[in-house]
Amino acid sequence: MKIILDGMGGDNAPAEIVNGAIQAIKDMPHTIVIVGDETKIHAELKKHKYDQNQIIVKHASDVITNEDTPVKAVRTKKESSMVVGINMVKNGEGDLFISAGNSGALMAGGLFILGRIQGIDRPALATIYPILGGQASLLVDAGANSECKPENLLEFATMGSIYMEKVLGRTNPSVGLVNIGAEETKGTTVTKAAHELLEKSNLNFRGNVEAREIPFGASDVIVCDGFVGNVILKLTEGMALSIYGLLKKRLTAGLMAKMGAVLLYDKLKGLKKEFDYSEYGGAPILGVKGPLVKMHGSSNANAVKNTILKAIPYAEQNVVQTIQNSVLELEEIKISE
Amino acid sequence: MKIILDGMGGDNAPAEIVNGAIQAIKDMPHTIVIVGDETKIHAELKKHKYDQNQIIVKHASDVITNEDTPVKAVRTKKESSMVVGINMVKNGEGDLFISAGNSGALMAGGLFILGRIQGIDRPALATIYPILGGQASLLVDAGANSECKPENLLEFATMGSIYMEKVLGRTNPSVGLVNIGAEETKGTTVTKAAHELLEKSNLNFRGNVEAREIPFGASDVIVCDGFVGNVILKLTEGMALSIYGLLKKRLTAGLMAKMGAVLLYDKLKGLKKEFDYSEYGGAPILGVKGPLVKMHGSSNANAVKNTILKAIPYAEQNVVQTIQNSVLELEEIKISE
Repeated sequence: MKIILDGMGGDNAPAEIVNGAIQAIKDMPHTIVIVGDETKIHAELKKHKYDQNQIIVKHASDVITNEDTPVKAVRTKKESSMVVGINMVKNGEGDLFISAGNSGALMAGGLFILGRIQGIDRPALATIYPILGGQASLLVDAGANSECKPENLLEFATMGSIYMEKVLGRTNPSVGLVNIGAEETKGTTVTKAAHELLEKSNLNFRGNVEAREIPFGASDVIVCDGFVGNVILKLTEGMALSIYGLLKKRLTAGLMAKMGAVLLYDKLKGLKKEFDYSEYGGAPILGVKGPLVKMHGSSNANAVKNTILKAIPYAEQNVVQTIQNSVLELEEIKISE
Repeated sequence: MKIILDGMGGDNAPAEIVNGAIQAIKDMPHTIVIVGDETKIHAELKKHKYDQNQIIVKHASDVITNEDTPVKAVRTKKESSMVVGINMVKNGEGDLFISAGNSGALMAGGLFILGRIQGIDRPALATIYPILGGQASLLVDAGANSECKPENLLEFATMGSIYMEKVLGRTNPSVGLVNIGAEETKGTTVTKAAHELLEKSNLNFRGNVEAREIPFGASDVIVCDGFVGNVILKLTEGMALSIYGLLKKRLTAGLMAKMGAVLLYDKLKGLKKEFDYSEYGGAPILGVKGPLVKMHGSSNANAVKNTILKAIPYAEQNVVQTIQNSVLELEEIKISE
């Protein structure tokens, strides 16, 4: 298998990206193609010892930055590492593309270069949602589609279930619809209609999920529109940061507390690790004709390595083909509406 | 001033409600009218010593429960403590109504009995959002209106600012619009249009607020539709519970940690208190022609007392009249659209 890696995307490119690729090949037999400025990438590669058969550099002269407008960038920056990389997946020169760059551009590249899977109206960004002391959930959509139709939420649920089963190995994953009450009559016109569609599906639909239950692992797949998904993800990060910040301040406030802080250090470290998203790999874009994975923009070498290793099943398990195969069933549910 | 208290609403009625009222009169000169089953309420009152001039019992033979459908309950249960209490505000027999009962029914009662303030399209539920180590924000709408127009968000911002200034004493309160990015071009068609309206207003509008910043006190007033508001509130509660739960487990896991737990006990207790909503009083319904306040259904005597004491300025500071006076300015902004 060939994994295409965007060498220029993210805050720490290319140094940490290259370093992460070198760490990854130690733990897998696959080849990595690093796309980007070959001079810069080779300069980074020279700093390490590695199996030269497993790493290839593909030159790309341009870069899409976070300041670029996604659609325009994909259309005009043809020689950017991201556009070159996605084209390699399209042309069969690689099996998977991973980038820490501009999320919107990665989604736009998926749409314009690879194209939507026929029958999928809206591709989505899916993100792992860590559960303290439990198995992670998958949040779909995590921010790609601010406004959704009920049919889109059904698509998100289906694609998320397939990814959860094939890539994260969760058997018969449960699906929950984010809503403001447990009863099916609760919510907006969109969530009510989505609830009906999900009930008709073959998915393991558990009904509505209130936001209070999400941190406790309410369901394997958490379905919502991208606006709500973004709020859930960002608020969770903000809450965790805010509580740790205050704990740290309080822990070091007095001598008594300082003694406690030393004793508790390893416990809190374990807690903090559970909120380190890089442990779970990246965020897949679901619904386009090829596996694309988004990494955090701030990914370091370890996060890059983890993302690469954990993303392998996305290509190996034929997730894209499985989503394609599910479309017929989706069409029947939508039409029966 | 006369405060009307729903003696029958909530999980701990009437015992904790009555007890809370008795605690409250010790700290204020106002009279409390407890509405509900007079036999039950007198039975509770008899358990305490209190100034009988400050507590009046008004009989109401029926109760609206959490299982009742709000609109139907308000229309059919004319003798319920909630309907009787709201009618007393309408008829000038009281200045403020507080209930721990069915939130939807309280909103419906406000709409059907008191009526909307002319020019306010959608009344809202506003809730205090506690900030760790900082001043609390006010979240509007916290769940009353799942689907909103941009004009509704402008109304929420205006009413929230007035409440924040008059009741919580925050001078020139800042307003933030919950959105999925800081740029004004981000979000849904509704949030984009709301951003434009808010920019034209005389409010202290700070622009979009991403959910990550909310726990850090991004702005005094946090504006969003009721679906997103419900998600923010419930997720915050869920996150706090989940982190405390794990901390508690970890703190008591080993002898070393147990020693740490003892030393840290008072620090963590202080932290937990910041998430006890009852410290901040109840949630006002804004936009109806009279001050209505919702308490948590699980309120104990201390929460009841706090809610009563903190709600006094809602009536004393003429918040309803101030909102009414702001409507003309709102109309001008809406029309200029």
